[in-house]
Amino acid sequence: MSVLVVGSVALDSVETPFGKVDDALGGSATYFSAAASYFTDVNVVAVVGQDFPHDQIEFLKKRHVNFDGLVTRPGKTFRWGGKYDFDLNQRETLFTHLNVFEEFDPELPDHYKNIPYLFLANIHPDLQLKVLQKMNRPKLVIMDTMNFWIERTPDSLNKVLKLIDILIINDSEVRELSEDPNLFTGAKKIQLMGPKILAIKKGEHGALLVEDGNYFVAPAFPLDRLQDPTGAGDTFAGGFVGYLSKVDDYSQSNLRKAVIYGSTLASFCVEKFSLEKLKNLSEKDIENRYQQFIEMTRCD
Amino acid sequence: MSVLVVGSVALDSVETPFGKVDDALGGSATYFSAAASYFTDVNVVAVVGQDFPHDQIEFLKKRHVNFDGLVTRPGKTFRWGGKYDFDLNQRETLFTHLNVFEEFDPELPDHYKNIPYLFLANIHPDLQLKVLQKMNRPKLVIMDTMNFWIERTPDSLNKVLKLIDILIINDSEVRELSEDPNLFTGAKKIQLMGPKILAIKKGEHGALLVEDGNYFVAPAFPLDRLQDPTGAGDTFAGGFVGYLSKVDDYSQSNLRKAVIYGSTLASFCVEKFSLEKLKNLSEKDIENRYQQFIEMTRCD
Repeated sequence: MSVLVVGSVALDSVETPFGKVDDALGGSATYFSAAASYFTDVNVVAVVGQDFPHDQIEFLKKRHVNFDGLVTRPGKTFRWGGKYDFDLNQRETLFTHLNVFEEFDPELPDHYKNIPYLFLANIHPDLQLKVLQKMNRPKLVIMDTMNFWIERTPDSLNKVLKLIDILIINDSEVRELSEDPNLFTGAKKIQLMGPKILAIKKGEHGALLVEDGNYFVAPAFPLDRLQDPTGAGDTFAGGFVGYLSKVDDYSQSNLRKAVIYGSTLASFCVEKFSLEKLKNLSEKDIENRYQQFIEMTRCD
Repeated sequence: MSVLVVGSVALDSVETPFGKVDDALGGSATYFSAAASYFTDVNVVAVVGQDFPHDQIEFLKKRHVNFDGLVTRPGKTFRWGGKYDFDLNQRETLFTHLNVFEEFDPELPDHYKNIPYLFLANIHPDLQLKVLQKMNRPKLVIMDTMNFWIERTPDSLNKVLKLIDILIINDSEVRELSEDPNLFTGAKKIQLMGPKILAIKKGEHGALLVEDGNYFVAPAFPLDRLQDPTGAGDTFAGGFVGYLSKVDDYSQSNLRKAVIYGSTLASFCVEKFSLEKLKNLSEKDIENRYQQFIEMTRCD
């Protein structure tokens, strides 16, 4: 089954202790698509400026990522600049130039409206709602959000939360959104707000899946060297949603596998800057690492 | 096979958002023994003052914990006071009165010298070394340490590390001891210092076992409510070492099970203050929770 993603396509300038890139390909929709494209067809809704280097997304088009919903507007592309210290869990935003993204008003080509899997990346909840209302109700709606929307637009956020199936969120955001210091009781409170399933990202500590009283805990991959954590969350979402749409089923067993595929793709993402590592993975690369994940937690 | 533990028996005064206890039973050897006693015979080497309320360890004696190596000295028992805020990962030490523990010079009853499993709890590395030298080389030597010794007595610590098999240590201490911000390369550096196996405690994020290039990642138990995290690390060690000595084998498969048993016992420990919860567990309580751990990470 194919997937629709609504999010950002951006140019990132990132500095970590291991190097530096300027105006490198980034954005939530981009990372998501790259990861999901290893499992399924992906359709993108996003906006870029006239300066966008379209040749940089050629590799995605070759992997059947459809950009019919990518609109070019007068002005510059969304740019973000950030810096990471040795503790790659902490980042400093150097600048955020929304540019054409500031007026982003997602338009859905008609042939996008029946796509069964919808991923609403981290954008203004009013836009997430608008997209959802333009669609024929997808089979599965997954969304991401962030502290910014939790703090600034709680009413809008609450409206969208009521309408979605799965929330992908990080652990500190669970605590903030639920106003509960305990991750597990916090997750239960969020389930009462709408999403029946939570995929909670914990960075170097892996991920936690919550469905009813059912927990699944997955580790992060033990990497000797991370170069750049940018995009890891969206890449996780891409592997997670991509796998679910491929198998077209979200039983507990498939949700668990989807978490491991998400973690697998995220672990590749952080090994190099920008989308470098996500460009040329083989099916074998992915399967091998997936198996390593399984081996790491096996206890029998 | 029986286990020998050398560590502290103390009286703790602890305050958390969920309550408060004064002069409650505590100490590394105590928590360790309580947990290990569910798997095997335990023998304690420690010191207390004349004020120690011996009736408080009656429940351990009834479970075949041998206190022939518990010496009473003139003076007061080691006392520690601490306070936890809602973030139970962070604690503030209010006071540390070493009292008789300051002059602790571990004495080994003769019938302790051939015990095959030795746990050196977190005490001065010179004392750990002394105990090890007094023993006929045990089959397996496991030790704990802390930032205090890493910073203050690195030479002594390095001497003991050369002689042990398994180091139980927390993640921030791995980074400090190895001087490496990456947990995995840090662990490899520590393996070069002596211990072939590391059991790394990550608090609410579970535990990581490292043996050669082999990683095993275990979650922490999802608890809705923790009352008091004091002693969780020593309780983990008790379950871990207790299980290994019970099966008398430390293959990768048994090491993994030992990590889960350690995590299981630690998860009970933090549910109540002091050793309250560890007093009356049944075999069924432990097996049920062990199975819940296994279910939480199963992906097939």
